[in-house]
Amino acid sequence: MAKKKSANSSSDSNRAKADPAKLSPQDKKTLGSLTGLADGVVDLAHKSRAPHMDVPSRSLSNARYNKTKRYIEMGNNTTRRELFNLSQAKSYMQTLLVSSGCKQLIEEGKTTSIRGLYYLLKHTIDGTKEETFNDQAESDPIIEDVEVLLNALREELHVYASNRGTMVGNIIINDSGDEIDCSRMGSGGYNIPSIVEPEVVQFVKCSAKFILHVEKDTVWRRFNEDKFWRKHNCILTHGGGQPPRGVRRLLHRLHNELGLPIYCVLDNDPWGYYIYSVIKQGSINLAFESKRMAIPEAKYLGLRSIDFERCNLSNSVQIRLNDNDRKRAKQIANYPWFKDKPKWQKEIKKLLDNDFKLEVEALINKGISFVTETYVPERLEEQDWLD
Amino acid sequence: MAKKKSANSSSDSNRAKADPAKLSPQDKKTLGSLTGLADGVVDLAHKSRAPHMDVPSRSLSNARYNKTKRYIEMGNNTTRRELFNLSQAKSYMQTLLVSSGCKQLIEEGKTTSIRGLYYLLKHTIDGTKEETFNDQAESDPIIEDVEVLLNALREELHVYASNRGTMVGNIIINDSGDEIDCSRMGSGGYNIPSIVEPEVVQFVKCSAKFILHVEKDTVWRRFNEDKFWRKHNCILTHGGGQPPRGVRRLLHRLHNELGLPIYCVLDNDPWGYYIYSVIKQGSINLAFESKRMAIPEAKYLGLRSIDFERCNLSNSVQIRLNDNDRKRAKQIANYPWFKDKPKWQKEIKKLLDNDFKLEVEALINKGISFVTETYVPERLEEQDWLD
Repeated sequence: MAKKKSANSSSDSNRAKADPAKLSPQDKKTLGSLTGLADGVVDLAHKSRAPHMDVPSRSLSNARYNKTKRYIEMGNNTTRRELFNLSQAKSYMQTLLVSSGCKQLIEEGKTTSIRGLYYLLKHTIDGTKEETFNDQAESDPIIEDVEVLLNALREELHVYASNRGTMVGNIIINDSGDEIDCSRMGSGGYNIPSIVEPEVVQFVKCSAKFILHVEKDTVWRRFNEDKFWRKHNCILTHGGGQPPRGVRRLLHRLHNELGLPIYCVLDNDPWGYYIYSVIKQGSINLAFESKRMAIPEAKYLGLRSIDFERCNLSNSVQIRLNDNDRKRAKQIANYPWFKDKPKWQKEIKKLLDNDFKLEVEALINKGISFVTETYVPERLEEQDWLD
Repeated sequence: MAKKKSANSSSDSNRAKADPAKLSPQDKKTLGSLTGLADGVVDLAHKSRAPHMDVPSRSLSNARYNKTKRYIEMGNNTTRRELFNLSQAKSYMQTLLVSSGCKQLIEEGKTTSIRGLYYLLKHTIDGTKEETFNDQAESDPIIEDVEVLLNALREELHVYASNRGTMVGNIIINDSGDEIDCSRMGSGGYNIPSIVEPEVVQFVKCSAKFILHVEKDTVWRRFNEDKFWRKHNCILTHGGGQPPRGVRRLLHRLHNELGLPIYCVLDNDPWGYYIYSVIKQGSINLAFESKRMAIPEAKYLGLRSIDFERCNLSNSVQIRLNDNDRKRAKQIANYPWFKDKPKWQKEIKKLLDNDFKLEVEALINKGISFVTETYVPERLEEQDWLD
């Protein structure tokens, strides 16, 4: 089979390293950390000491809300992972394997998905029937371990997550050498990539004064169709529900580098509150990335529990809360960053008293463009939001 | 509450009709069909006859494979829906309600999602406790009824579905007045909107020679990062799994209006086969739209059941078939358009014999860019595909 041969030879040639001179400063830095990790192993071996690494703990008990910085951060607890410990040997070796996979990606100047990395590294260990990873559920947490171990974003390791999320508005960016005018993106919009680090995405020119972030694609399209961002000189984004890392990181950069305030329009339900909470304070399982993701100044514009009465909505749009909604609402009310906020306590109590939730789409009951022409402009005008 | 008042007044002003002179020829045509439907009701009433409509049946028994046209089409069966029939009165009225909602959208020059339309039309019927729609599961099929009744695409009724799907490549399009050069879209790409009818999306200039359509976002990014579309002068699209209507319709237009062949790179599993089948032949529940969606000439480039051996892949990348996979594979082998194709029969038999499936990502095991530098170029070079 001639094909097989050519396939193999090409695969080998793929392994050629990129010219180190071509690596970006960030890539060099990450590569340095990865090499340092490996050097540590060699050092210990030379000293005839058992190889080990201390991985910062990503557990709930090691995440805490920093009141000064106003986001969730990781504490100092670490877990030792040793090669010569039967219960830890596999994860120890997996950690080194993931590190070497990331090194390969950086050296070749390529990126891949977490699934791609899993496939890249999955193989049967020579002379055994043991797989390096049985499934992706084994490699995903190791990627997060390497992130915290090296204090590097996943994106800096050249691994990407999903890239839901779209942007339009009065900003020109440069993405991988292409200048993209986000005010000329038609009905479709610019697809926010998963990796939006400065090496990939630069801000060229921005006249927008704020960011309106909405929960869903469908709501985003209403705002885009009505050219809300043109009338109000802003940037319009959505994250397809809970925004993925790329969207959160881009919002963070827009907020911090360009000083743009961020207003969120989310559903009036515990899930909407939670999305806001993650944008604002970070999440527990990504606590180590809060400082590059969390936006404590983000504002919650709506929907509010008072909106049913305030906007005089029809009974038809109410969606009854279920047991899980009630439970989640109570948990969220107890989050440290909501606990001392009377306005948030009132908001969540009112949701529970209403015993129904409201989707942003429900406002269409008042007119197709009620949300873009009345609801949001009034909230902005009156500076009426929660934070 | 002053806010309530302003909210209401604005909502009323939203109802203003668009200038009929501004309507596109397509909108005028659709509006004519909608008005015709309503006129029919009035006519029957004037003649003192029971109002009714004959809705083309969207059942499996009314879908058939047209061997000449090579796609699934809808038969001629219709179901009568009468106002003065207790079991049909509600759906009769819902049909008129959806029609009037679409009329409103077109007249206002706006579009909405199927969820938006549900909220727009949902209300308690005066003097009763009856809701026009209890939930969206009631309004969605009625939208499809109106589509077949008027022989109008959902998009022509100004209602959109989800808009997963991204495009890059050597084509310049015009989307809603914005010229978009899809060869200058950075890492993110152009987000394919749900509505891609000629009123919204026009093809300005295209030098690409074919379309490579891949199943998933993650695979698409590998091809985009390697600038496959530049090297091979093509357009690169994905549909986020089963491509939504907008993507299918855009592929159809690119194929038919610009004469571009389409090659699909999908997972080697029944789901991948099914995606190909829908792109090629249409689907049963959208049989009425086949002529504007189906692309009988689309080619299946891979992954093939022979690829495990052909590409000399590691055992590690095999994913065992489950009962449902085996059942689906047998069903697909029996589809009329695969039944008489020895190559497809062999392909599916080999999948069952392998008893494992392969994801496109599995090729990364041969090198990060094996799929873009070896696998796909070799298939194209050798004209080695299924159809």
